[in-house]
Amino acid sequence: MPILSRKSVPKDPDATKERILDAALDVFSAKGYHDTRVDEIVEKSSTSKGSVYFHFPSKQSIFLALVDHFADMLEGRVIEAIEHQNAGIDRVRAALTACLDTFGRYRRLAKILLVQAAGLGAIFEEKRQEVLNRFSALVQIYLQEAVALGEIPPLDAEVVSQAWAGAINNLVIRWVYTGSPEPDRILSTLLPLLLRGVGFEEKQS
Amino acid sequence: MPILSRKSVPKDPDATKERILDAALDVFSAKGYHDTRVDEIVEKSSTSKGSVYFHFPSKQSIFLALVDHFADMLEGRVIEAIEHQNAGIDRVRAALTACLDTFGRYRRLAKILLVQAAGLGAIFEEKRQEVLNRFSALVQIYLQEAVALGEIPPLDAEVVSQAWAGAINNLVIRWVYTGSPEPDRILSTLLPLLLRGVGFEEKQS
Repeated sequence: MPILSRKSVPKDPDATKERILDAALDVFSAKGYHDTRVDEIVEKSSTSKGSVYFHFPSKQSIFLALVDHFADMLEGRVIEAIEHQNAGIDRVRAALTACLDTFGRYRRLAKILLVQAAGLGAIFEEKRQEVLNRFSALVQIYLQEAVALGEIPPLDAEVVSQAWAGAINNLVIRWVYTGSPEPDRILSTLLPLLLRGVGFEEKQS
Repeated sequence: MPILSRKSVPKDPDATKERILDAALDVFSAKGYHDTRVDEIVEKSSTSKGSVYFHFPSKQSIFLALVDHFADMLEGRVIEAIEHQNAGIDRVRAALTACLDTFGRYRRLAKILLVQAAGLGAIFEEKRQEVLNRFSALVQIYLQEAVALGEIPPLDAEVVSQAWAGAINNLVIRWVYTGSPEPDRILSTLLPLLLRGVGFEEKQS
């Protein structure tokens, strides 16, 4: 599965899409979703109206592509972090850490996507659930690995992974909106909370 | 703090408001938020256009009042369940059980409010956060009680209560949208997960 939008298609269209998305992020950040006009994205990206509309039929589709882009990056970073760990609970821990770390590094981007996106209504709600489902599907795999390895007792991995995704999502949204609690504080409480919850005993207290 | 909308104001306006909200729930359920006209709510409630607009300046305000009504009921049931318990972890358990039980009993209502509400965009996102904050503020109090009683180790009660609210919210939303996992299944996994997470050991495994 390709990560970070490096797909096996001719180079040019991809590079153009990237330029459009970079420009769109700048314009959305500066003006907000509502007040952004596609023409401004065209101008900022130094491409043409034709190529913007070729890739993206509407302002909304540009915005949703940015959300997908962020979700791809998040998933990519989680998977990368996990590959350096042995199977089992170490991967669960690495996945959570990478996820919060990514939000921490890209707070401005996360804020734009989450806060602006709320204005999109039902379409964004679907997109949010899609992203949460992607994340919890990943977590579910690693939880099942940890169970298979005997590191944690058997559990309803679907319910647990959805609970984890919801817990992280709510804390991240609150942090993005209000600036508190910060990722370090979230991580230091959330990680032991979630791991203890599934019956895993940390070495350090 | 008044619960379930029994407030100390003259009887009539309150009864009228109730009738309007009951009617609105029926009409929203049948037609969806978008296709509902205020006139249909007026007709269904057997009140007058004047009294509907006196209480609610717009369709949106009727809908948001229904959301508040549901949040009041949820909070009322949680508080009622808790009052029958000793301070501490029993209250935490009662709060979670009452919360999931309420969603279980009022699935249709919850579905209408959550699914329709997504279409309201940023206004609903704010309302959702307000409701989640009310719930997590309650949980925070009971967690701090349990810590004070020595039933669980000290913790960052703000982060934990937000994590719990997010976990429950995500599972409820998924259940409301997809029909799975069901409240019984959520409860049997989530309750031990959350309690173990804060270091509380259940008597039964």
